[in-house]
Amino acid sequence: MFRFPSVLLSRRLHRRELSSSTTSHPPSLPLSHPIYLIWGSNTGVGKTLVSAGIAAAFLLSSPTPSQFHYLKPLQTGFPSDSDSRFVFNKLRQLSLIRNPHIPLSASHRVINLSPAVTASNPLAGEEGVGPPPELLCKTLYAWEEAVSPHLAAEREGLVVKDSVVLETLGECLEDVAECGAGKERSEVLCVVETAGGVASPGPSGSLQCDLYRPFRIPAVLVGDGRLGGISGTISAYESLKLRGYDVVAVVFEDHGLLNEGPLMSYMRNKVPVLVLPPIPKDPLNDLMEWFESSHYIFSNLKEIMLSAYFERIKKLHDMPREARDIIWWPFTQHKLVPDGGVTVIDSRCGENFSIFKVQKTEVIAPQFDACASWWTQGPDAIMQTELAREMGYAAARFGHVMFPENVHEPALNCAELLLQGVGKGWASRTYFSDNGSTAIEIALKMAFRKFSVDHGLIVHCHEDTTNERSTELMVLALQRSYHGDTLGAMEAQAPSSYTGFLQQPWYTGRGLFLDPPSVFMHNSTWNVSIPEGYHLESLKGKSITFASPDEIFHKGRDKSELATVYSSYISKVLSGFRGSNNVGALIMEPVIQGAGGMHMVDPLFQRVLVNECRSRKIPVIFDEVFTGFWRLGVETAVELIHCVPDIACFGKLLTGGIIPLAVTLATNAVFDSFIGDSKVF
Amino acid sequence: MFRFPSVLLSRRLHRRELSSSTTSHPPSLPLSHPIYLIWGSNTGVGKTLVSAGIAAAFLLSSPTPSQFHYLKPLQTGFPSDSDSRFVFNKLRQLSLIRNPHIPLSASHRVINLSPAVTASNPLAGEEGVGPPPELLCKTLYAWEEAVSPHLAAEREGLVVKDSVVLETLGECLEDVAECGAGKERSEVLCVVETAGGVASPGPSGSLQCDLYRPFRIPAVLVGDGRLGGISGTISAYESLKLRGYDVVAVVFEDHGLLNEGPLMSYMRNKVPVLVLPPIPKDPLNDLMEWFESSHYIFSNLKEIMLSAYFERIKKLHDMPREARDIIWWPFTQHKLVPDGGVTVIDSRCGENFSIFKVQKTEVIAPQFDACASWWTQGPDAIMQTELAREMGYAAARFGHVMFPENVHEPALNCAELLLQGVGKGWASRTYFSDNGSTAIEIALKMAFRKFSVDHGLIVHCHEDTTNERSTELMVLALQRSYHGDTLGAMEAQAPSSYTGFLQQPWYTGRGLFLDPPSVFMHNSTWNVSIPEGYHLESLKGKSITFASPDEIFHKGRDKSELATVYSSYISKVLSGFRGSNNVGALIMEPVIQGAGGMHMVDPLFQRVLVNECRSRKIPVIFDEVFTGFWRLGVETAVELIHCVPDIACFGKLLTGGIIPLAVTLATNAVFDSFIGDSKVF
Repeated sequence: MFRFPSVLLSRRLHRRELSSSTTSHPPSLPLSHPIYLIWGSNTGVGKTLVSAGIAAAFLLSSPTPSQFHYLKPLQTGFPSDSDSRFVFNKLRQLSLIRNPHIPLSASHRVINLSPAVTASNPLAGEEGVGPPPELLCKTLYAWEEAVSPHLAAEREGLVVKDSVVLETLGECLEDVAECGAGKERSEVLCVVETAGGVASPGPSGSLQCDLYRPFRIPAVLVGDGRLGGISGTISAYESLKLRGYDVVAVVFEDHGLLNEGPLMSYMRNKVPVLVLPPIPKDPLNDLMEWFESSHYIFSNLKEIMLSAYFERIKKLHDMPREARDIIWWPFTQHKLVPDGGVTVIDSRCGENFSIFKVQKTEVIAPQFDACASWWTQGPDAIMQTELAREMGYAAARFGHVMFPENVHEPALNCAELLLQGVGKGWASRTYFSDNGSTAIEIALKMAFRKFSVDHGLIVHCHEDTTNERSTELMVLALQRSYHGDTLGAMEAQAPSSYTGFLQQPWYTGRGLFLDPPSVFMHNSTWNVSIPEGYHLESLKGKSITFASPDEIFHKGRDKSELATVYSSYISKVLSGFRGSNNVGALIMEPVIQGAGGMHMVDPLFQRVLVNECRSRKIPVIFDEVFTGFWRLGVETAVELIHCVPDIACFGKLLTGGIIPLAVTLATNAVFDSFIGDSKVF
Repeated sequence: MFRFPSVLLSRRLHRRELSSSTTSHPPSLPLSHPIYLIWGSNTGVGKTLVSAGIAAAFLLSSPTPSQFHYLKPLQTGFPSDSDSRFVFNKLRQLSLIRNPHIPLSASHRVINLSPAVTASNPLAGEEGVGPPPELLCKTLYAWEEAVSPHLAAEREGLVVKDSVVLETLGECLEDVAECGAGKERSEVLCVVETAGGVASPGPSGSLQCDLYRPFRIPAVLVGDGRLGGISGTISAYESLKLRGYDVVAVVFEDHGLLNEGPLMSYMRNKVPVLVLPPIPKDPLNDLMEWFESSHYIFSNLKEIMLSAYFERIKKLHDMPREARDIIWWPFTQHKLVPDGGVTVIDSRCGENFSIFKVQKTEVIAPQFDACASWWTQGPDAIMQTELAREMGYAAARFGHVMFPENVHEPALNCAELLLQGVGKGWASRTYFSDNGSTAIEIALKMAFRKFSVDHGLIVHCHEDTTNERSTELMVLALQRSYHGDTLGAMEAQAPSSYTGFLQQPWYTGRGLFLDPPSVFMHNSTWNVSIPEGYHLESLKGKSITFASPDEIFHKGRDKSELATVYSSYISKVLSGFRGSNNVGALIMEPVIQGAGGMHMVDPLFQRVLVNECRSRKIPVIFDEVFTGFWRLGVETAVELIHCVPDIACFGKLLTGGIIPLAVTLATNAVFDSFIGDSKVF
């Protein structure tokens, strides 16, 4: 039955300021070797020690020549703090202990320094001994002050846009793939260490969990073993989940509080939780012993990271075949889907899918969603996260609750916003359902009831327990219309390739279908093309072309000769129709006919049609499932065609595409035609 | 179009261990006066100072006699740490500064002490001077060790179930209402201070944000002004949102890092962010000056809390009327909804709604959801939170993406689970849609196509662009069936009060409707009631009663006389049907007919019917929208009636009711009948 999340759409679905948001075309994520993001549940929980520990486990006990990349995109407190230098130094130290005769070959670079740092300290990198390096450490951006990157960036003048950070990181990740060319998958490992906590701001002020989201690199979360650390770790984990990240492991330093118990119980064995021995607090301690004592844990962590990577790669390769085997897609002739024709969508971020591609190398690459996923998708990356959070909230608050004779805040708020928004000026009632097609069927029932009451076909308050019906009601609709895929909604569309016996076995076409004049552009001019059957004599010699859409939509056209032509055509068809009072509803997609072929109908014709129906007391339904919520640049098509319906249907962008929800709006006059003394009225 | 969240249902929907979970009937939340939960984004961020500050702002500058309740449900480190004593002492100190002659009347109580504390320290409470108290401080449970409550509880022996904590808290909240009887709404304020961070465990190990969830008390979040504090505050906020809490304000101590900037930008002005002056770190400082200097902020916070409370109360009162004005409910004759008959659902937790009730006083009270919200609801409180988190994850990862010719993990995983679960042993293909009714229409199209191919009604690979159809296909269905509310699905049900002209204007009843034998219980015996039309002569003298459901469902009944009776009845009806080869599908709800009246059909009859259809190559559809996913105590009704369909529909519990999703499962033979060279085949 009725489920209701508060993912409602405000009138501000149009794009917001995106200056600090993600680029529209972020770089690809190479998959040739494992890459992980290291997140902290707070600052100071030991992310860098974990990175170094993973590096040691990976490099120093490997029988084959391996390569480890350590990337620190954002470093503040530089140069006294430099996590990449720390990893570089510790690994060289550790390697000398393990193997005093063959030092680790390593490099360390800092790519972009804030002016403050450059002035006081020219040091930008150091090289270890002997190529080719097995350990490559890089800091991408460094600021001097030991504060959050957004403050340091502002104060020191090295402000970097999110898109630039992503690009620089993307280049470094490409380097990883290039350096690793020819090596086995498991011979190269890269970790990208974030700064501070998961939701600490980056240099633009964007939260890092949002900033890095386009890559959606798998995550290792460094938790907190202190008092309060269970809470901090779980909340950080939830913030990552709420942005669509996959966390492969949680690891934290033991403080003797047994935080692993509640954490493991929370994770329900879905995510491994590892505990590191206490870290010596003495700043003079070189940690060599600690690294030795935690070697087993880090080896374990490394194995988890490698096997999660292999599992992901396998899944990405297997999914197309598995999908062909067990999925039955809508609107698809499966025989025509070529081998290799199934796209794996790994995620989406704003207007881009992230898809799995095998080119020179395997990558997760952005791909612009050119049809907005059949016009259902709207939100940018930031709004996507906001909607996900609101959805999570609504689901957590309500789960599923019954609706009839009940009320709850999200439904009421949504109803109010709809009446003040897309229903402004005419609608008084909201009827929720879960897809556009169902919303259309609801609209048809509403219209037929209103028509029946207005035309005396049913007696008010009469119980209708028999199944006798004295009249057959049909719709007045347009050629090339499309109103949804359920069997009833399809009855309201004109015969087409969608309505054959094979597509709709019960189709009869319960409509009178008009062939509407259409608008098209040719040589920078807007033309109206009028089908046969219209009496165009009065227009003789007059052109029906327009310089701009504004002219086409202009209300002044009501006084034109063409309006008279339209009006008499419609009158003629309606009166010529056998038993014309059986036309119980007008249904049309205002301005643009979507699935029927993206035809633009002359708005003057539609307005005249609405007026002709209204004068005959035929209820008017606008199918705005496709056109509503700013899809045409205006809130609803009503603003373009300057007339209102009695009933209208909305869906798709209503929830930004996030969940199935549709609504049928109606006037109180329509609603009142259902009022009676019995439930079956 | 197709939207897909990963809220998929595993086969383990049946109730899990609930020992540490919430009680099935938690106490009510009184609304007579404002009550707030004080949460911390970490431990040690100053929750108690904030509580004391609010108390001071409320009590010490009020022109009218006010009353402040401070509740600390869980205190560890007692008695050296006692937040309620701290509030008690600070407020008395502050009141003496403000008004040296009239000391604040206050009381302080500790209700339950761990044995460890009782042994070492008999002090359990102290009283201030002069009744009636304006400040009432209470600690509900106290443990000695300064660790997380779950550890202290385990080690000291005062283990408390969640339900007991809730009950004790509920009693204290009732006391608040009783003490405040006769006072104005704004003359009493209560804060409940949590322990540690939002997700710190309570004494049973349940996270506090889960533990207190049944009350869903509005929240004030004490954030973190330190380095890393932006992240910790945002993550804590998200954990609260992900459990359906409303946060009315965020407040934190200034550490000079301007954390308010990113926090305010994150909150988009929807939640106010307040900054407190730095707290003196000297333990000898009595904080009196700090309270003075932060008085303005706390007054502000108090006003926010009061006005959010008044807004909530107003909304709760207004919502029923507003809903009656603008909502159009399904399945409802609005004229029959009495004044006062609209229920405000404030939230749900597991099997209970939380509804607004005006009794002696206004409360948010639990109410058992006796019909599981029309059989769509399943999860307990913990699973509700898990599903909300998974939904948030899927929405954040994918937003909305197209499905045809694409694949993504949640859809594929869900498809696999369905085939291994409810489709086990027969189904090979999954077709997703968004409600049960649509799933039924999809099933009908599948069945008719299969029938048409099997019976040579259409030529394979023939393009069907005309709308001519040589045959009319009907369903074989049962009296009293119900298969959904869309116009097409309704055609598959027998004439009933649902199918009159007023309910379904296009209804013709495209079916041959059999009157099935039904099962009922009488005097502890299970009886089969056989309608007229069956030839019962062969049964003469034999009883059709059973001692248990097991007997009724027993496969051995296939060899009974009754099976022969059923078989000949069905054969007779089918062969007597004019043009019987036009029956293109059998559709039925196995075992229980839901919306049609909760009738149990004799499973033997259904099995015989399936066999008769199969022998005539009539595809069989099981409508398991209601019965599927353990609703009948078994995973699907197939386990009860011992025969499988060619096509089956599932919905409702598929997502635990959280979002609209349905699926039509089919065999590969059905799928193959759609394979052709053209999209319109």
